[in-house]
Amino acid sequence: MTRIRLFAGTFDPPSLGHLDVIKRAKIFCNRLIIAVAVGHPGRKSSSLFSIEERKEMLLLATRAVAHVEIESFDGLVVDFAKKKGASFLVRGLRAFSDFESESQMALANRRLSGIETLFLMATEPHTQISSTLIREIAHFGGSLKEFVPQEIEPLIRRKITRAS
Amino acid sequence: MTRIRLFAGTFDPPSLGHLDVIKRAKIFCNRLIIAVAVGHPGRKSSSLFSIEERKEMLLLATRAVAHVEIESFDGLVVDFAKKKGASFLVRGLRAFSDFESESQMALANRRLSGIETLFLMATEPHTQISSTLIREIAHFGGSLKEFVPQEIEPLIRRKITRAS
Amino acid sequence: MTRIRLFAGTFDPPSLGHLDVIKRAKIFCNRLIIAVAVGHPGRKSSSLFSIEERKEMLLLATRAVAHVEIESFDGLVVDFAKKKGASFLVRGLRAFSDFESESQMALANRRLSGIETLFLMATEPHTQISSTLIREIAHFGGSLKEFVPQEIEPLIRRKITRAS
Amino acid sequence: MTRIRLFAGTFDPPSLGHLDVIKRAKIFCNRLIIAVAVGHPGRKSSSLFSIEERKEMLLLATRAVAHVEIESFDGLVVDFAKKKGASFLVRGLRAFSDFESESQMALANRRLSGIETLFLMATEPHTQISSTLIREIAHFGGSLKEFVPQEIEPLIRRKITRAS
Amino acid sequence: MTRIRLFAGTFDPPSLGHLDVIKRAKIFCNRLIIAVAVGHPGRKSSSLFSIEERKEMLLLATRAVAHVEIESFDGLVVDFAKKKGASFLVRGLRAFSDFESESQMALANRRLSGIETLFLMATEPHTQISSTLIREIAHFGGSLKEFVPQEIEPLIRRKITRAS
Amino acid sequence: MTRIRLFAGTFDPPSLGHLDVIKRAKIFCNRLIIAVAVGHPGRKSSSLFSIEERKEMLLLATRAVAHVEIESFDGLVVDFAKKKGASFLVRGLRAFSDFESESQMALANRRLSGIETLFLMATEPHTQISSTLIREIAHFGGSLKEFVPQEIEPLIRRKITRAS
Repeated sequence: MTRIRLFAGTFDPPSLGHLDVIKRAKIFCNRLIIAVAVGHPGRKSSSLFSIEERKEMLLLATRAVAHVEIESFDGLVVDFAKKKGASFLVRGLRAFSDFESESQMALANRRLSGIETLFLMATEPHTQISSTLIREIAHFGGSLKEFVPQEIEPLIRRKITRAS
Repeated sequence: MTRIRLFAGTFDPPSLGHLDVIKRAKIFCNRLIIAVAVGHPGRKSSSLFSIEERKEMLLLATRAVAHVEIESFDGLVVDFAKKKGASFLVRGLRAFSDFESESQMALANRRLSGIETLFLMATEPHTQISSTLIREIAHFGGSLKEFVPQEIEPLIRRKITRAS
Repeated sequence: MTRIRLFAGTFDPPSLGHLDVIKRAKIFCNRLIIAVAVGHPGRKSSSLFSIEERKEMLLLATRAVAHVEIESFDGLVVDFAKKKGASFLVRGLRAFSDFESESQMALANRRLSGIETLFLMATEPHTQISSTLIREIAHFGGSLKEFVPQEIEPLIRRKITRAS
Repeated sequence: MTRIRLFAGTFDPPSLGHLDVIKRAKIFCNRLIIAVAVGHPGRKSSSLFSIEERKEMLLLATRAVAHVEIESFDGLVVDFAKKKGASFLVRGLRAFSDFESESQMALANRRLSGIETLFLMATEPHTQISSTLIREIAHFGGSLKEFVPQEIEPLIRRKITRAS
Repeated sequence: MTRIRLFAGTFDPPSLGHLDVIKRAKIFCNRLIIAVAVGHPGRKSSSLFSIEERKEMLLLATRAVAHVEIESFDGLVVDFAKKKGASFLVRGLRAFSDFESESQMALANRRLSGIETLFLMATEPHTQISSTLIREIAHFGGSLKEFVPQEIEPLIRRKITRAS
Repeated sequence: MTRIRLFAGTFDPPSLGHLDVIKRAKIFCNRLIIAVAVGHPGRKSSSLFSIEERKEMLLLATRAVAHVEIESFDGLVVDFAKKKGASFLVRGLRAFSDFESESQMALANRRLSGIETLFLMATEPHTQISSTLIREIAHFGGSLKEFVPQEIEPLIRRKITRAS
């Protein structure tokens, strides 16, 4: 039986924390779909990286991880999960501030679709840095090597320089 | 002696969680004023629903609850509470992330006016979903029946469809 | 209509935080019953002060607060509340660590009896010190004047000296 | 491939929250081993129910759930997991106070053995009550029907009555 | 040996909480640099007060505190700290919601530069009000005297009136 | 001017987390006094290691850290700090559950004596394991090498084996 799991997010940009969840989630599923959300309609802020850039960065960062698929979606994550045949969502819990919003989201997703969410605890400190903080460090020219997969650091640099 | 309590919020839109607080708060006061804040000047995001729409939705949702008044206000909630003769504010605590901002707000309101805030704990899971999440689910066409009073689901649908 | 509220605890010893809840709760009820729990059967630690000592300390500390009754009880707090005709429990929330256990307790009490719990936020810093910390400070001869009602400091001193 | 998961705890007594984790965990594993810890050496409190009673209660409560095995263990949970061929631990997260200790435990277990822990969020309110609170309610004769599987309520009653 | 500490923030506007950290931090350093961040590039919201206004308000509020320097910076706080020869950052922790973001920031700063952050706990309730809440109260004409240093209240009033 | 800092705890046993605080605190003080509390009178549990064993373990673990003094004390930590001429207490914050008790303790110590507490955030994951968990792992023969300074692992092993 093929077990499909789905790991959704905005990945704007992908962090070492995302990569940590991807690697560890791979252990308990045959196929892992990384689902890149096009945008957050309810929250006005638009993403810094385009959907293509985010997919490309994930592709680069996960080259060494087998059977990972990268797709984008627009809509409810549970609708996309059903369409792809994914029976579970996977999420990482970095800290207690994640706990609350993740708990609310898991509850809503379960009520909307019956789909459960499995959580892994972030266990390494360099995996606890948010994409927001990474964008800020990059903007000011700080080193990103402790925070993002090394394959994608040049892409982030190039983008941020153009944006400044 | 008439005991007036005031339950203030943006209600954008009202949720089952709001309705839960309204019903339970009614038990310990003669009159409950639901005070709909016109806007949050400090926070830039404008509301999705107009003040009239939010009042109409609250009216529909609370039809079965006696002695509830729905009013809008612009300004400090404690100033409005004084004007209406309300001696207490009522708030629901959904989760520990509410705790902090609610605690800070209750402290500020008490220092500004001497008016106390009484809190009720959200005790049902479907009452823990925020208005932000409800707007997001609605935007993508997800079912709202576990999250909002059924009387107002059509109004939300109509609005969101127009906005998309 | 007489509104009876019940504020239950072990009060081992009473703190300025307890007194703060008592005074503020008085504003929204005609009668406030302070219910001193004889013991916590599930938790093995026995109380430092006897039930009589704890009632006496509360009596001294609340002399200036009208219509407060002090009683002891053994059993479920909701059973005692029903027996006394109290329609609500009152609790203070000192901090987010209180939030969780208080939330669980309020939920359990509501399911057991339908009785609601109203919460007040502790708003003064000297009211945030737990009885456990007060016992520790007293044991080592530290000053208690910032932490307990002044009327009961001599009683605590005497007791702790005897216990050492 | 057989996927074995292990759900360890003291289950003193089992609660509806435990049963909720067991049922939901079954969906993503072929075999689920419920591992009852004989005791907590570091924490002095002994369990109320004997290891046999706790296993019997779990047996009664999980009769309707296929492929669940109930075993007791003494020692590190990761050693027991390895012995049984379990590749993952399963835990429920009831609330943010669980988050911290569970996070610390998951980190320690991973460092000791490489075994990961998968978490599920408790999503129903009746599943948020701790075994400690259940023992307290039972001690005072309160109804347990909202908190424990109905099959085991008589056993708890009998035990608590004898212990009082 | 001169010990230089740096206290960075947006101070939009400075609050009694900021002043509390400044005074207490002075005890353990010879020179304290208050570093006013020009902006938060990652977060879109712009500041209400200009950088000059924020520096002026800090100057007024800290006149009685010796050896405090007020400077503005644009970029990573650790880069500015190094340039000024500051060996430590100082931060106040108001509440547990601060804890998480401050912890993440301290970790990132340490990894970027080796510079440590020393934290002080906010210990007075009037120091727990955020600049966001202060702006909201000011907007609606509420009294600020419990929340901001009295020297700067007129400046805030004037600004907010103009902005409305 | 000699700056003396005091780091107090029970150290039962010392962990890598304690050692992390000790090393980092050394950077901002000339002398660091590690103050080992004989016991916690308010909390009934007695320590596993004797005061001599705990001092010996700290001595072994801090041999490479200059100007560290190890002393034991019985009583209020602020009284001991005053006696030793320490102007500040130093504490590590591992997680948000620490935050609350540490905040309360810092507040109480400041009110009792005017002595401030400086906090450092635990930034490495192996420093987040509590002494309680370490005792539990040791009891069952698990490896301690990720959790305690290597110099003291043999002492812990010997002790635990004798205790079992």
